[in-house]
Amino acid sequence: MGLNVMSRARWEIPTPGLLLDLDQFDRNIERLRSHLAETAANLKLRPHMKTLKSVKLGHRLTKALGTDAITVSTLAEAEVYAGAGYRDILYAVGISPAKLDRVAALIRAGIDCQVITDNQDVSRAIARFSKDSGIAIPVLIEIDCDGHRAGIRSDEHEKLIAVASELNGSADLRGVMTHGGGSYGASSKGELHAAAEQEVRSVRIAARILREAGFQAPVISVGSTPTALAHVNRTGVSELRAGVFPFFDLVMAGIGVCDVSEIALSVVTSVIGHQRQKGWILCDAGWMALSRDRGTQSQAQDCGYGLVCDVEGRAIPNLIVASTNQEHGILAMREGSDTAMADIPIGTQLRILPNHACATAAQHGGYNVTSKRSRRIQWFERFSGW
Amino acid sequence: MGLNVMSRARWEIPTPGLLLDLDQFDRNIERLRSHLAETAANLKLRPHMKTLKSVKLGHRLTKALGTDAITVSTLAEAEVYAGAGYRDILYAVGISPAKLDRVAALIRAGIDCQVITDNQDVSRAIARFSKDSGIAIPVLIEIDCDGHRAGIRSDEHEKLIAVASELNGSADLRGVMTHGGGSYGASSKGELHAAAEQEVRSVRIAARILREAGFQAPVISVGSTPTALAHVNRTGVSELRAGVFPFFDLVMAGIGVCDVSEIALSVVTSVIGHQRQKGWILCDAGWMALSRDRGTQSQAQDCGYGLVCDVEGRAIPNLIVASTNQEHGILAMREGSDTAMADIPIGTQLRILPNHACATAAQHGGYNVTSKRSRRIQWFERFSGW
Repeated sequence: MGLNVMSRARWEIPTPGLLLDLDQFDRNIERLRSHLAETAANLKLRPHMKTLKSVKLGHRLTKALGTDAITVSTLAEAEVYAGAGYRDILYAVGISPAKLDRVAALIRAGIDCQVITDNQDVSRAIARFSKDSGIAIPVLIEIDCDGHRAGIRSDEHEKLIAVASELNGSADLRGVMTHGGGSYGASSKGELHAAAEQEVRSVRIAARILREAGFQAPVISVGSTPTALAHVNRTGVSELRAGVFPFFDLVMAGIGVCDVSEIALSVVTSVIGHQRQKGWILCDAGWMALSRDRGTQSQAQDCGYGLVCDVEGRAIPNLIVASTNQEHGILAMREGSDTAMADIPIGTQLRILPNHACATAAQHGGYNVTSKRSRRIQWFERFSGW
Repeated sequence: MGLNVMSRARWEIPTPGLLLDLDQFDRNIERLRSHLAETAANLKLRPHMKTLKSVKLGHRLTKALGTDAITVSTLAEAEVYAGAGYRDILYAVGISPAKLDRVAALIRAGIDCQVITDNQDVSRAIARFSKDSGIAIPVLIEIDCDGHRAGIRSDEHEKLIAVASELNGSADLRGVMTHGGGSYGASSKGELHAAAEQEVRSVRIAARILREAGFQAPVISVGSTPTALAHVNRTGVSELRAGVFPFFDLVMAGIGVCDVSEIALSVVTSVIGHQRQKGWILCDAGWMALSRDRGTQSQAQDCGYGLVCDVEGRAIPNLIVASTNQEHGILAMREGSDTAMADIPIGTQLRILPNHACATAAQHGGYNVTSKRSRRIQWFERFSGW
């Protein structure tokens, strides 16, 4: 086997490097848009921008969806996106009282920066802060629809009323929100549908409890990529959030939300060696480039640290990133596979599809953006931090 | 339970935030320095700078060790550290031929930038590049001492000679190197000692094979934090590399290389909620702040995504980060523990010790540096990329 670098197609980027197929990105957004246009005409779309962390991609996403409302996971995101012109922002992680100063600064700058909480202690702190500052902080109460993380269960009637009561008067109680993150663990279409139904049901009940107790709760917000793409009746829901759908990833493919061929994000890597007696190919994409995410570990098809494709993005059957060090990836055939290992020469570029696009993208300073319409690879910067 | 934020000690940094105890950092470096001063006086120290990715911390480390030679894991590191004055740099990941241009640029700028390889294809490419460019690229042959990753085994006599032969004449063959990364899996002092012995033995044999075949092999380089801190006879070894020792982490504590109290790096987080019936505390350090590294999973003491300490850094027995989402950490008592869960109020700051300091630090744009000598927290920037 000779060194066969120059005769093969290559991306002219340093490896490892993050590659975004902008055409697929656009198709993935259009898929959600048209799905929702069919099933829920009056829904306000509030895409989650935590996956992208890019002003350019953010603008492209919200323009395609025809919305100007966004969701963020950090106040740093809120501040960057506010600087880029967004004025309707939901910070969808339970607020810590020490962060209210930064929320107030955004509101003073004309941003409708909404926060969430699920408990009386924080509600009381928000109410006191609102009173002291003269800024009525807009708040959604976080509902727990599936037990996977934070939130008040919709059967915790008293707790819900208690939290709303603390807010009332000083803060600006807007309504309720939930995130059907439990849907990530779905292993059938039936489970996925049930998760989407449960997500809607839980916030409808919570909003009714609040309204019957005399609180205003105009906002009923739900969302996650798997549930957003499900066919459920969303009557009464006012807004929908979803994040990873423009990229998709192996976790989403594993639960049947997308096909592997629809994943828009990959890491370009170069082969740097072999351990032939072990059936290993070594490449220069380690966990620093791929992340340590093992999201497919609990799925029917474990993809290790990622699924290996050729330089054009065609998956090489059963070849996965079996393990990673900081700057080394070890490629091997999936356990139990009887396919022979391809002999891939040193210097060959490959592409790795990520388990979890949010985690893999976060390892990189930006996107190498490719599109059929432009032969030149563009660099779209990412931001990070808190 | 009332909101009890203001009455508690706090770090005046946004949470989650990376905190470095500079005094502990100094003590950890001094520990390695004095250990090696006792056991191996003539060893050139070439610390691995991939963990720090900080010019300020790098200078502090090399000054304390009395060396100006460094190891890096990416060419981006080589370029940044070269810009900061380092002139003796080993790039210790098998080079991909497409990266030789960047190596040559460093050499032209006066940097002794050494590369490694373990195969004939790359050796031939390096020799051809050296000949064509007139720059004799300095090369170490990578030896596989424990089967964990790349390298030529020291019993692969013919392969070793073949790789050396390809290089000879055009490139600048300097010698051999190995990384005893298998030592990370050691579960006893005996296994650790055996790994350190094997690391040294493998490169001694490889260098002898080369020398007997008439090649110059002045450099014999070994290293990893666990093996560097072992007591072995290193006669004949010319240089030693190690990386994570200035910070240490839970993986190192788990294999007995350090005590938990010696870990210099932590992530400061704030409590944002509770799910009391489940025994959960929610905090604002998710995998974005901690990384997805689960390095302690296979150790006797699984620490989840990190061990929880109070704001002063005192470990809270058996409280771990049981699971993570992007910006949420779920704290819970370690399985099987019968300690009662502490009631930690919302807003309380905690510190999370990382499984793997390299991975956790890489999630942050810089270090909040604290020291007994300075009351002010300093910000030391980190760099990243390839």
